[in-house]
Amino acid sequence: MSEVITPKEQDYSKWYNDIVVEADLADHSSVRGCMVIKPHGYAIWEKMQQALDKMFKDTGHVNAYFPLFIPKSLFEAEEKNAEGFAKECAVVTHYRLKTNPNEKGKLIVDPEAKLEEELIVRPTSEAIIWNTYKGWIESYRDLPILVNQWANVVRWEMRTRLFLRTAEFLWQEGHTAHATKEEAITETKQMLDVYANFLENWMAVPVVKGVKTANERFAGADDTYCIEALMQDGKALQAGTSHFLGQNFAKAFDVKYVTKENKQEYVWATSWGVSTRLMGALIMSHSDNKGLVIPPKLAPTQVVIIPIYKGDEGLKKVSEVANEIKKKLQEKNISVKYDDRDSQRPGWKFAEYELKGIPIRITVGERDLANNTIEVARRDNLTKTTIQINDAETYIENLLVEIQKSLLANAKLRMQNLTTNVDTYEEFKNVLDNKTGFVYAHWDGTPETEEKIKEETKATIRCIPLNNPEEIGVCVYSGKPSKQRVLFARSY
Amino acid sequence: MSEVITPKEQDYSKWYNDIVVEADLADHSSVRGCMVIKPHGYAIWEKMQQALDKMFKDTGHVNAYFPLFIPKSLFEAEEKNAEGFAKECAVVTHYRLKTNPNEKGKLIVDPEAKLEEELIVRPTSEAIIWNTYKGWIESYRDLPILVNQWANVVRWEMRTRLFLRTAEFLWQEGHTAHATKEEAITETKQMLDVYANFLENWMAVPVVKGVKTANERFAGADDTYCIEALMQDGKALQAGTSHFLGQNFAKAFDVKYVTKENKQEYVWATSWGVSTRLMGALIMSHSDNKGLVIPPKLAPTQVVIIPIYKGDEGLKKVSEVANEIKKKLQEKNISVKYDDRDSQRPGWKFAEYELKGIPIRITVGERDLANNTIEVARRDNLTKTTIQINDAETYIENLLVEIQKSLLANAKLRMQNLTTNVDTYEEFKNVLDNKTGFVYAHWDGTPETEEKIKEETKATIRCIPLNNPEEIGVCVYSGKPSKQRVLFARSY
Repeated sequence: MSEVITPKEQDYSKWYNDIVVEADLADHSSVRGCMVIKPHGYAIWEKMQQALDKMFKDTGHVNAYFPLFIPKSLFEAEEKNAEGFAKECAVVTHYRLKTNPNEKGKLIVDPEAKLEEELIVRPTSEAIIWNTYKGWIESYRDLPILVNQWANVVRWEMRTRLFLRTAEFLWQEGHTAHATKEEAITETKQMLDVYANFLENWMAVPVVKGVKTANERFAGADDTYCIEALMQDGKALQAGTSHFLGQNFAKAFDVKYVTKENKQEYVWATSWGVSTRLMGALIMSHSDNKGLVIPPKLAPTQVVIIPIYKGDEGLKKVSEVANEIKKKLQEKNISVKYDDRDSQRPGWKFAEYELKGIPIRITVGERDLANNTIEVARRDNLTKTTIQINDAETYIENLLVEIQKSLLANAKLRMQNLTTNVDTYEEFKNVLDNKTGFVYAHWDGTPETEEKIKEETKATIRCIPLNNPEEIGVCVYSGKPSKQRVLFARSY
Repeated sequence: MSEVITPKEQDYSKWYNDIVVEADLADHSSVRGCMVIKPHGYAIWEKMQQALDKMFKDTGHVNAYFPLFIPKSLFEAEEKNAEGFAKECAVVTHYRLKTNPNEKGKLIVDPEAKLEEELIVRPTSEAIIWNTYKGWIESYRDLPILVNQWANVVRWEMRTRLFLRTAEFLWQEGHTAHATKEEAITETKQMLDVYANFLENWMAVPVVKGVKTANERFAGADDTYCIEALMQDGKALQAGTSHFLGQNFAKAFDVKYVTKENKQEYVWATSWGVSTRLMGALIMSHSDNKGLVIPPKLAPTQVVIIPIYKGDEGLKKVSEVANEIKKKLQEKNISVKYDDRDSQRPGWKFAEYELKGIPIRITVGERDLANNTIEVARRDNLTKTTIQINDAETYIENLLVEIQKSLLANAKLRMQNLTTNVDTYEEFKNVLDNKTGFVYAHWDGTPETEEKIKEETKATIRCIPLNNPEEIGVCVYSGKPSKQRVLFARSY
């Protein structure tokens, strides 16, 4: 079974794709660039959604839903945003099909059903939402508005990869409206912290929090904050962004409020989002050549129990114990599957659940019952232990916590080992080519240098880390003075 | 506050729209026929989703996600389905915008970015899903496939009404694949039962279960089962459908499986769905001229506590009691909001929460504290009671159950009162025009008669009820013999 996965040392990109497809997470569809999210992948996404949704609600946000389509005239209202997304917009131009007079049973677009104004399939919803907020906001009493939306969006990407970059993807987009600049900036940073917390404590993925350079900013934002994660191949992955939008959308859509002092002011805005791209980050952070590894807190099934027996009598004996263990674990809110199918052999099942990343496998063997023991196997480090049946509940409960911790600790260690400070351009290129990973280097602060470095090395400034220490130095590229190191990497 | 709602006796349609808008459930957007689902409305929809999702999972289904777009060639593969939806399809023809050379800051569709094959925005997903299932199904071991999808769909309706009929709406669509006809029919009926159960026990809306006539069948189905609910104005509302699709989609997409006997057979299919239309059913079932009435099991906030006091000292005293009650209710998993805003007066708050349909209002008054009492008001029948503070938990817990029951009982009584057996066409028309409601009448079983009756009276056959008693009679329209009465009504 595990031979279906191309080893990552052989072809990292193929390894990733193999896991996505073979672990039943997602697959390509017959629509260019769009994926089918398969049940196992969707179940993990649901766990992510639940955790994030609770975090959003705990920080005072509510959910709502806005239209899929944006009339072109609204879409182009905030010029920078429109310009940034124009090249990747799917456009609805007609609202009816009719039978093809020349070919029986076929349909054609009805030319008489052309829309007066084209509709853009949302690549992001600032335009339609701020056009709506205009009707919701009159005075300071209506602020803040703290709304989140779970939705699909479409960005017509030319080169797509399952989860990492697809034409349609699922995401959440928060859109908040505030009376003051300070409050909006506080919100922007708060949601960045929520994302960082989610990645670290749920996905077991450590991140660097920072702010983007002007070049890498979201189109229409005054500032884009981001979290950057490091994948096993040493490439960075932008895992979430939180934008301080200033008054750009309020001005584009004329959204003003009356202050306590009875003055008219433009409203301040933020938006923030994470997407099914997080699935890519999850897969590339923990998986190995046997398949997916899911952190326990996001595993739809945390424990699988597999029986080993001979004959019906044996199955009966083993099942009694297995079902008892299952029941006790479920009482502790641990999700358990007992796989007693007789159509597959134990070895096949072992490989199958390793491939799918189930954190813990319990084997209940007919022979072990004499000693009152079961075998417990960890998916993360592939070790096995024999334990007393009576200890199962406590042992498994603790082990789930231990695995979650261990995955994070390993990912942190990898990030640490793959983070390098460099002081010369030679060193910079050498590290990128040979060691890979995060590279901290001095930069003169100009877009020109940033652009040159990108052209020559394919590395971009991932972010200027928050709370970055001041350090006097010289730009590795231009030799001009610099006050801080910024984070460079090649990225997804 | 309550004057914002047009009384239903005056203008039922306006009454409905007023509630939707004023209770912050939804609003029209600047996209033709598309609505914005506002936070309060979306929170109720989330409660519906959670309950339904659990019911789907309890019956063995898993969630997945399929593309928003369907290439035209796939869309037209199942001819009846394609023909049924062709007239209401939004079509994506281009994938890029560019700056308008003639008008600064404006965008136009880039004519060079025309798609080779147009993409249909899904009006329903059978086509894309069965094209995918083709790759998932080889043998009987791969069956059944029991998948559900939560998604947005688009049907270009000419006349739209918030929640009831919108161009874009949210729904779930189950798509299952089975080895045998019997199994598929069992699934179709099971999901109809799930829907009926949800409407009755969560929404407090009684329904008639039945099967559609050929005229009213889903395009591409062999049989469409449905649940029909009765609104306060005596009109029927189709609240959910479950389709037995036969082998139509399997044949259109060539989906075969190898049987245990090693033969190739086409797969059998079902699909079933409910949508944000259920919000319309909920609103029109229970609301009154003061606003929305939400059944407790679907209320995002079940209890609101409002303080009545004078000065800071008074608020402090009252808040102590209110917070204690809130805490105790929350421990019983009752969702409670304590509204101690000093920006609004109690009377305003009373009207506000009546408008929004919160099932129970507790008033904690400074003067009542001397007697250790609080006032409890029911939203459903607008009655008030004074109870001892110590009894609050038990009283409220029981009252929520009581309100849920009472709403259902009232809706059942209304349905009973508005259900009439008629034996002549005169009576038929008379009941429709004056009494309104569900009308059981004999029908000769022909599409021609069905069509004529629809033309002349605007009433359609809502369904042939399941377990319909045999009864010899004559068709009210044609006088031809009939073996059973069928359910007629005017409908949404």
